[in-house]
Amino acid sequence: MAHNLCYAQSGGVTAVINQSAAGVIERGRQIVNVDTVLAARDGIMGVLQEQMYDCQVIDSAAIRNSPGGFFGSCRFKLPPKFDPSYDHFLQRIVDVFAAHDVRYFLYNGGGDSQDTLLKIAQFAKTVHYPLSCIGIPKTIDNDLPHTDTSPGFGSAAKYLAVSTLEAACDLQAMHATSTKIFILEVMGRNCGWLAAATSLAADVDKGLGPDILLLPEVPFNGKTVLARCEAAIAEKGFCFIVVAEGLQDLHHHHLTKPHDIDAFGHPQLGGIAPALAHYVREHLHYKTHWAVCDYLQRSARHIASATDVAQAYEVGRAAVDMAAGGETDIMATLVREQDGPYRWRTSSVHLDQVANRENPLPAHFLCDQGYRITEAGKAYLRPLIEGESYPRFVAGLPLYQRCNAPFVASRLAAFHWPEKYGL
Amino acid sequence: MAHNLCYAQSGGVTAVINQSAAGVIERGRQIVNVDTVLAARDGIMGVLQEQMYDCQVIDSAAIRNSPGGFFGSCRFKLPPKFDPSYDHFLQRIVDVFAAHDVRYFLYNGGGDSQDTLLKIAQFAKTVHYPLSCIGIPKTIDNDLPHTDTSPGFGSAAKYLAVSTLEAACDLQAMHATSTKIFILEVMGRNCGWLAAATSLAADVDKGLGPDILLLPEVPFNGKTVLARCEAAIAEKGFCFIVVAEGLQDLHHHHLTKPHDIDAFGHPQLGGIAPALAHYVREHLHYKTHWAVCDYLQRSARHIASATDVAQAYEVGRAAVDMAAGGETDIMATLVREQDGPYRWRTSSVHLDQVANRENPLPAHFLCDQGYRITEAGKAYLRPLIEGESYPRFVAGLPLYQRCNAPFVASRLAAFHWPEKYGL
Repeated sequence: MAHNLCYAQSGGVTAVINQSAAGVIERGRQIVNVDTVLAARDGIMGVLQEQMYDCQVIDSAAIRNSPGGFFGSCRFKLPPKFDPSYDHFLQRIVDVFAAHDVRYFLYNGGGDSQDTLLKIAQFAKTVHYPLSCIGIPKTIDNDLPHTDTSPGFGSAAKYLAVSTLEAACDLQAMHATSTKIFILEVMGRNCGWLAAATSLAADVDKGLGPDILLLPEVPFNGKTVLARCEAAIAEKGFCFIVVAEGLQDLHHHHLTKPHDIDAFGHPQLGGIAPALAHYVREHLHYKTHWAVCDYLQRSARHIASATDVAQAYEVGRAAVDMAAGGETDIMATLVREQDGPYRWRTSSVHLDQVANRENPLPAHFLCDQGYRITEAGKAYLRPLIEGESYPRFVAGLPLYQRCNAPFVASRLAAFHWPEKYGL
Repeated sequence: MAHNLCYAQSGGVTAVINQSAAGVIERGRQIVNVDTVLAARDGIMGVLQEQMYDCQVIDSAAIRNSPGGFFGSCRFKLPPKFDPSYDHFLQRIVDVFAAHDVRYFLYNGGGDSQDTLLKIAQFAKTVHYPLSCIGIPKTIDNDLPHTDTSPGFGSAAKYLAVSTLEAACDLQAMHATSTKIFILEVMGRNCGWLAAATSLAADVDKGLGPDILLLPEVPFNGKTVLARCEAAIAEKGFCFIVVAEGLQDLHHHHLTKPHDIDAFGHPQLGGIAPALAHYVREHLHYKTHWAVCDYLQRSARHIASATDVAQAYEVGRAAVDMAAGGETDIMATLVREQDGPYRWRTSSVHLDQVANRENPLPAHFLCDQGYRITEAGKAYLRPLIEGESYPRFVAGLPLYQRCNAPFVASRLAAFHWPEKYGL
C-alpha cells in the first residue's frame, strides 16, 4: 500500500540542494508505493509546525536549477535526549507524520542534520511508528565521512577555483605598481576542503594558483606565513593567500573572535581575511587586498559543477528508492569507482556513522608543511568540479524561482513550543 | 607611410579589457597605415622602461577571453607640470616612441589614465613629435563621463546582480532560524553605479532584490538604515543591504579608514561591510552575514556581459581607426541610440572632457531617499548586463592565458628614474 513521503532541507543551503529535491520529487512520482511527496517548510521546523508543501503541483524542472533551499532550510537542533522537552518534540514529529500518513522521511543535510534524522528514526521505533528515515547528503564543506563527496561541495569548489584563477589574473596584471598580496577567505569550519580546491587554479597556469593555503587542519604560524609571502613576491612578484574561516592557532582556538553562536552551537565565523591583511600589511608593508565570499560561494549556481549537479540529483533519487525499498537509518552516499574519467555510483551508510561526524583533509593530501596540496589531493578534487551546468538566463539574469506552492491542510492543533524557544 | 602603434593598459583591470586589446591588435593588422602593433608592459611603465611586446606573434583570439590585463597594467601617475621631473618623464616617452617609430598611442584606462594620455599628447605637440593619442575607455566604476558606459562596468554589474540574486536565494531559505541580514560590499569609490546595478536582481523576483542600497552619493544615516532594516525584516523576514566601499558620512568623509593611498593619491578603500555588520548587529541583534567581493567583481570573466564584451572589443577597433585617420586628443566613446532593444555605436570626446573627471549617479536615478533606484535608472542599466559570453572551459576551469610574447629589442639606454621613485 502506498504512503506519503516527506522531504526536508536542513543546514546551510547549497547551489545544488534543489537538484536533490527534484530527484526526490521526480522519483517519488514514479515509485508505486509512494503516494504524495510532501516538502516541509524550513526543514524540521515545518514538520513541527505542520507546514508542508504539496509537491504534486510543483514543477520540479523549474526548481532544480535555483540555488538556495526551495522549501526553506533551518539551523535547528532537537533537544538532547536528557532534556525534558525531548519527548515533546519527537512525539510531535511522529504525530504530524501519522496525521499525514507519512511513512518515509528524507532529510537533506550535513552531519548535524543526520543526527536529527537519527533521533527521529530511533524515537519512531520506540513508539512503534513505522517510519523509513533516509538521509540525503549535503554540505559545501565536504566534511561528511563515508561518501566520496557531499553534493554542494563540487560547485562551491568550482566557484572558488575559478575565482582564485580570475583574481590571480588581476593581481598578475597589477602587482608591478599596486597590490602585491591578495587574501581570499573561504568557508570551512574545521575542514580545509574548500581552501584545498582553490589549488586547482594552478592546473590552468602554475603562476595563477594560490601560493599559501591556510587550512583549519594546520595551526597558524605567523612568521612562516610572512616568510612564504616574501618568497612568493621575490619569485613571481605577488602572493595569493587562501585562508579558511576556521583557521586555528597552536592551541586550537579560532583566530577570529566568534560574533555569534549558531543554533547548532558552533561559533559563527568569518572575517579572518581583513585581520590577516592587517597583519601582513603591518609586517611587510605591501599593498594588500582581500575578499570574503561568504554565502556567494555556496549559492553560485551560475558556475555550478555539472558533476555536482548530477550527483545531487542522483542521491535524491536513490534515497527515495532506499525508503520505498523498506530501508531505514541510512544516508545515501557516493562511491568513487575511478578517477579519470571519473566514475561513481550511489550507495549508503548507517546514520550513526555520519551523525555529528567530521571528515578533515587526510594527511597525505597535505604537503609543504601543510601550505599546499599533494598531487593525490588534486587527483581527488579534479573530477568534482568538472563540467559546466549553466542555468537559463533571461534579460541577463538567471531565471531562479521561489516556492509558491500551497501547504497541505493542517490536521492537528498548533505545536506548543516549550517556553525557552520563545516562538 | 605606415608607422607603429603602441597600446597600453592602465588602472584597475577588468574582465573585458583584453577584448579591447584584441580589437586593437586585430584592427591594427587590417589598417594599411599601421605597421606593427606594440603593447607596453604594465601601462606607461613599459613605455618608460622600453618594454614593449611585439603583438605580431600574439594570438588575439587566445587573449580576448582572459580577465586581468594581458600586458600588465599600472597605477602610476606622471608628475604634475610644475614638478621638476615632468619634462624628464615626458621627453623619455617621446624618445621611446621616436626610437620605435610609434606615431599612434592608444591608452586603455579610466579618468586618471586619460589625464596621463592628455599630458603626453600635449607634450608631444610642444616638442613637435607627430603622435596621435587616442583613449580607450575602461573602468568597472562606470564613472567616465560622455560615454554611455565604460567597458568593464557591464560585466562587473552582471556579476554583482547575479551574486545578489543568488545570495538572496540563500538568505530566503535560511532566515527563519538563522541569518536575517546580509551585507554585500561592492566597489565604487565615489560613484554608486555598481551598487545600483544590484537592483536588477529584483527583475527576477521582487523579494530577491536588495532592500537597502548605500551609495557614495547619499550620506550614511545610521538610524534610518536601522529602521529600514527592521521594516524589511518585518515585511519579508530578512534584509539585503548593498554597500559601496566609498560610502561617506554627512561631512563627506569615507566611513572606513583608508589603510593605504594608491598611486593616484586615492585612499584604498574596502572593509565597510564588516564595520556595518558590527553596527547593525549591535543595534538590532539579528544574525548578520557579509561578503566583500573586491577583485572578484572586476575579474569575473566567467559571468561577463555579452554586451560589455562586444563594446570593449569595438572601442578598441574604433580607437585604431581614429588614430589611423589622423585624429588625436580624443577618447573613443559609446553612444546609446535606443534602450530596448539596446542599440549603440562608437563615437569620441576630447580628452579634456574626461581626464580626471567623475560621473556620479544622476539624481533622477535615485528614489526613496536615495536607498533605491528609479525605473529610469534600471532602464539605463538593464541592457548593459545582457547576454552571456562564457569562456572556454577545460577540465572544469576556464582556459585563461598569460602573456609569453617577447619584447621588441631595446634601442635606448635604460631610463633614469628620479630618486624619489625609488626604482
